[in-house]
Amino acid sequence: MIAPPSAEVGLAARKRMDALAKPTGSLGRLEDLAVWISACQGVCPPRLLERVRAVVLAGDHGVSHVGVSAYPREVTAAMMRAFAAGIAGASVLARQHGVALRVLDLGVDDDLAGLPAALRQHKVRRSSGAIHLTDGLSHADTDQALAAGVAIADEEIAAGADLLIVGDLGIGNTTPAAALIAATFAAGAREVTGRGTGLDADQVRHKTAVIAQALARVGHRARDPMDRLSALGSADLAAGVGFVRRAADCGVPVLLDGVVSVAVACLAENLDPGVLAWCAAGHRSTEPAQRLALARSGLAPVLDLGLRLGEGSGAIAAVPLLRSAVLLVREMGLLDDLATPPH
Amino acid sequence: MIAPPSAEVGLAARKRMDALAKPTGSLGRLEDLAVWISACQGVCPPRLLERVRAVVLAGDHGVSHVGVSAYPREVTAAMMRAFAAGIAGASVLARQHGVALRVLDLGVDDDLAGLPAALRQHKVRRSSGAIHLTDGLSHADTDQALAAGVAIADEEIAAGADLLIVGDLGIGNTTPAAALIAATFAAGAREVTGRGTGLDADQVRHKTAVIAQALARVGHRARDPMDRLSALGSADLAAGVGFVRRAADCGVPVLLDGVVSVAVACLAENLDPGVLAWCAAGHRSTEPAQRLALARSGLAPVLDLGLRLGEGSGAIAAVPLLRSAVLLVREMGLLDDLATPPH
Repeated sequence: MIAPPSAEVGLAARKRMDALAKPTGSLGRLEDLAVWISACQGVCPPRLLERVRAVVLAGDHGVSHVGVSAYPREVTAAMMRAFAAGIAGASVLARQHGVALRVLDLGVDDDLAGLPAALRQHKVRRSSGAIHLTDGLSHADTDQALAAGVAIADEEIAAGADLLIVGDLGIGNTTPAAALIAATFAAGAREVTGRGTGLDADQVRHKTAVIAQALARVGHRARDPMDRLSALGSADLAAGVGFVRRAADCGVPVLLDGVVSVAVACLAENLDPGVLAWCAAGHRSTEPAQRLALARSGLAPVLDLGLRLGEGSGAIAAVPLLRSAVLLVREMGLLDDLATPPH
Repeated sequence: MIAPPSAEVGLAARKRMDALAKPTGSLGRLEDLAVWISACQGVCPPRLLERVRAVVLAGDHGVSHVGVSAYPREVTAAMMRAFAAGIAGASVLARQHGVALRVLDLGVDDDLAGLPAALRQHKVRRSSGAIHLTDGLSHADTDQALAAGVAIADEEIAAGADLLIVGDLGIGNTTPAAALIAATFAAGAREVTGRGTGLDADQVRHKTAVIAQALARVGHRARDPMDRLSALGSADLAAGVGFVRRAADCGVPVLLDGVVSVAVACLAENLDPGVLAWCAAGHRSTEPAQRLALARSGLAPVLDLGLRLGEGSGAIAAVPLLRSAVLLVREMGLLDDLATPPH
């Protein structure tokens, strides 16, 4: 059980928001975000979100060999190199917003020769099991990946993070993410399966069958969140669970991205109730599993732009709006300051 | 007739977008925005949006004396002072994003003593007529306000604007804006009337009746866009029409804000077809007239956060996303650059 953000400070922030020189409620969702950030920080008005830090957790997936993605597995490692060169989509957005960004190899099926060793320091294994045929991870691997996520969170928090973002990289990763969401919310494969990076209708039918097979294979074991994570997860997803859970436990708010980060946050909530109170949804992705999980969790996304890039991109793109929320509550005048003459 | 943005350059931008190191279409609406900005600039990749400039056109409205707003008329002048002090909501957002912001008095019912004379240099009159009883503006006032909007646009363009934003300030202004949208799209008063700054259900019924009375009073005269603007508009709204029309004619893209800016842009489109091709919608406001006008015009808003502050705030808050669109197309690597080994 994780202690919630401060209800008392949240109330104070709502009162201050209502006292600003504007019609009550006229800043819409920005008001909710300002209240949430204040409550997480335990101070009103909230501190500036100067040190936003994002990690992109990378891994390959056994299912990527069976036609669940529009791209071959090798693209994962190629994108690691694009991150190292600063030319990935999320690299561009992180530079724009001054977000510190690290990409980390948890389970990429490549030795990533020539890339800095620091990227591989948390590596658990090469690829994860094909979840329709076998468990994604052994219990030992799951424990190791969870611990890696905790260690990564600790590194980011030690660097002074005001806000954390968890992004994903890995061909095929929407399949385990969707399967985890289906198992977490007792939904069917058809409700959660999406087009990923660009499948056509026939390919979506095949991906749905793979997810249905995985859910049927695992059966009742999916009720236990640790078993569910081992059976349907992967090294990168399990590390994400450890990361989000640790951030919440340390009282650092997390901005979620697409279907992968929402899948891991909801699983972390099952492991340790209270995690999601420290999370906000950065954007609505095009993946139906993400939509389902947000709705079931009561999380309203900040952006809804049809993004489906992954990499933490939707959350990073939403950062200026969280900063706006903080700045508005800090810098706007109060209604009492407005010099209106008496009637 | 206004010449459209370059279709040829737009096509080149779409091709470049498709060649970036990402799944086709995975940047969603950001791709459309990048293509639009490229087409407006006539160059691909597009130039950075460094000089974004916003004007807030202020005025009072005859109808503000008859209970169509939750706030008294005097708040308009008080908010002018808040802008001068840099503590309005839009002031905070403009500082955050480096947007040059000017607030200008077109028809405020106050002499604004003590504020810089430059704020009043384009003033047309004090308040506008109560549109359910009389025309908002004489034809001479309409011409003067349109010319003021042209002059304001020329000043902003001379200052080097890459992108312009038009915001609004004025108690009661959602009433003429909704009436103009109803007349522009042949909609009824009930379809366009909203809560404005925070009316309750009874007050919304009263506001609906005022708008219905205005539309009935004007009748067939509303078919002609110039007559419509005189009859249902105001100095600040007519200046907005001149502003948006001039920006489009000069080939400078405009990011629209809430119901007022969308009302003036749609009227400008009627006066001079082609204006809207130079406009994007910054956000979806809570006003039903804005939703109706966006849908009828085929404009998809960037943000949808339940904002209803006015002041250009929704458009200014959306600026980082337009900048993201430009940066992504400029700085992301190409698929061809990804070093994937041959199969």
